[in-house]
Amino acid sequence: MAGDRPHEFELIKRFFAPLATDSGSLGLADDAAVFTPRPGYDLVLTKDMLAADVHFFASDPPDAIARKALRVNLSDLAAKGARPRGYLLGLGLAVDWTADWLERFCAGLAADQAAFGLVLWGGDTIKSGDGLQISVTAIGEVPQASAVRRNGARAGDILYVSGTIGDGAAGLKARLDSGFAGRYGLNDYDLAHILDRYLLPRPRVDLAGALSDHAHAAMDVSDGLFADAQHIADASAVDLRIDLDLVPVSSALAKIRDVSPGDFTGLLGGGDDYEILACVPEVSAAAFEVGAKAADCPVTRIGEVRNGGGKVELESGGSPVRSSSAGFRHF
Amino acid sequence: MAGDRPHEFELIKRFFAPLATDSGSLGLADDAAVFTPRPGYDLVLTKDMLAADVHFFASDPPDAIARKALRVNLSDLAAKGARPRGYLLGLGLAVDWTADWLERFCAGLAADQAAFGLVLWGGDTIKSGDGLQISVTAIGEVPQASAVRRNGARAGDILYVSGTIGDGAAGLKARLDSGFAGRYGLNDYDLAHILDRYLLPRPRVDLAGALSDHAHAAMDVSDGLFADAQHIADASAVDLRIDLDLVPVSSALAKIRDVSPGDFTGLLGGGDDYEILACVPEVSAAAFEVGAKAADCPVTRIGEVRNGGGKVELESGGSPVRSSSAGFRHF
Repeated sequence: MAGDRPHEFELIKRFFAPLATDSGSLGLADDAAVFTPRPGYDLVLTKDMLAADVHFFASDPPDAIARKALRVNLSDLAAKGARPRGYLLGLGLAVDWTADWLERFCAGLAADQAAFGLVLWGGDTIKSGDGLQISVTAIGEVPQASAVRRNGARAGDILYVSGTIGDGAAGLKARLDSGFAGRYGLNDYDLAHILDRYLLPRPRVDLAGALSDHAHAAMDVSDGLFADAQHIADASAVDLRIDLDLVPVSSALAKIRDVSPGDFTGLLGGGDDYEILACVPEVSAAAFEVGAKAADCPVTRIGEVRNGGGKVELESGGSPVRSSSAGFRHF
Repeated sequence: MAGDRPHEFELIKRFFAPLATDSGSLGLADDAAVFTPRPGYDLVLTKDMLAADVHFFASDPPDAIARKALRVNLSDLAAKGARPRGYLLGLGLAVDWTADWLERFCAGLAADQAAFGLVLWGGDTIKSGDGLQISVTAIGEVPQASAVRRNGARAGDILYVSGTIGDGAAGLKARLDSGFAGRYGLNDYDLAHILDRYLLPRPRVDLAGALSDHAHAAMDVSDGLFADAQHIADASAVDLRIDLDLVPVSSALAKIRDVSPGDFTGLLGGGDDYEILACVPEVSAAAFEVGAKAADCPVTRIGEVRNGGGKVELESGGSPVRSSSAGFRHF
């Protein structure tokens, strides 16, 4: 063991075993974890990979990188109506990793395990080439047969979105362009808000119950509001109409809209929101809103589902809007 | 879409969706898969990562790389007594990947899904930096409370190993050293055998039932016979005695033993075997052997479990043997 660079067995014992707080994790001292599913529940399984300088900046705080890697997966689970239970972590460490960095990375995981109620079940660590890569497999549970899919939207459903849209994409642009805030008259608060929303998504884990109870279809907004609406329209073979004037935005995005409606619309479709886009039947709308409020999760009606062949129609001021934004491609 | 290099949505549709043969995979057209666990079964979860030129050669046939990535995980499941059900695939493609390469990679996955009875539940693909990285999360099921751990070995248990040991490590050496076969007098058959065993592990999936029925402890031999025996000795707080003369070997390894007993012992501890090391109580030994035979899986008694504090003792010709082999560290 090379002082600051423990090998795999020490690595597990020192950094990862403390995160394996479930007896089924076997203290990470086995080849595999054992999990006894609860009767009456389905499991929801998702996997997202993140690479340095594609999905995050290598210079980001290690705890924020860890939490983002976990949270983008929790966002997928939430969109399906599932509560997180556990995860497996694949870590391809860059050649220049340090024990201090890994300690802070694991502190981020520990904080989010506590915040979102899940445990580390297992994983693997290898030496990556030129940059950090993180692969998280997250598993959640949902009452049997009530997982929310993309393909269940029906004409007449109300289209909801949680939180505010566009902040993550704006934060990425501000991160890359020091003139961004000045150009749109953003104050320090606005700038800090959008930077933070890019750095650290807020997965809508608490909305899972209201979604599995009431939503016909849902997904999380990661590629971008319009691209993800298109995914639902495609999967459900319906049209989605979005009224851009109804899309909830932060004060930062409102200022950007005042300066450049075109830039604003681009950011709405820019991705990295990790909010929930949901289609809820009219008859369940009131109950859905009550459930969302009880979960302390703001949801806003932004449009509706119509019969059609898979189009997403944008409107503003009652008129159609053309958007060239196709969403951010992570690959 | 750039002709030969489809982007992620086409990638999923063209290459991965055909592998998602379970309805719960939702055709990979959703954020997550849904899996309904069978009542009365526990789930066993494992994750192994592989990197080009660490765990395989970048120039290996793509279908063999895919199968190895899947099989090292299936080997972990088998050691726990679990039958595979599904997996999630994380793929960090090297910058120079081609559609033809990926097609052959997926053909390997398809072949092994059919051979071992599991389905693709989901995954993610990103652009890796300088080399291919593969992360597989595999999930299996085992009758409730009958998963086989490392920590259950007890004094008096018989130590078994499946198949033959040392072939994978010999295959790696032969791959790296064109004089290897000549030095030990290996013929073409021997050379082909060890090269093949390094390229393509044979996970003992069919042994899972006999293990969960009869074994006190088990693990798969990946780090090396002695290192992995040490893992069991540590976890179970027992001593393990291995009679090197009883360790089953191929004709290739027997020839190496004749030329150099030291090199031979080094290869026994070299790793990459993906055979099963199991501790079975004397009273169940006959039934375990019958079960292994029914599964068409050769198992051999190579030693025993004794009271002690976690030592692995090697013997040959009735005398103690010192081994300096600490097993191969993949990290």
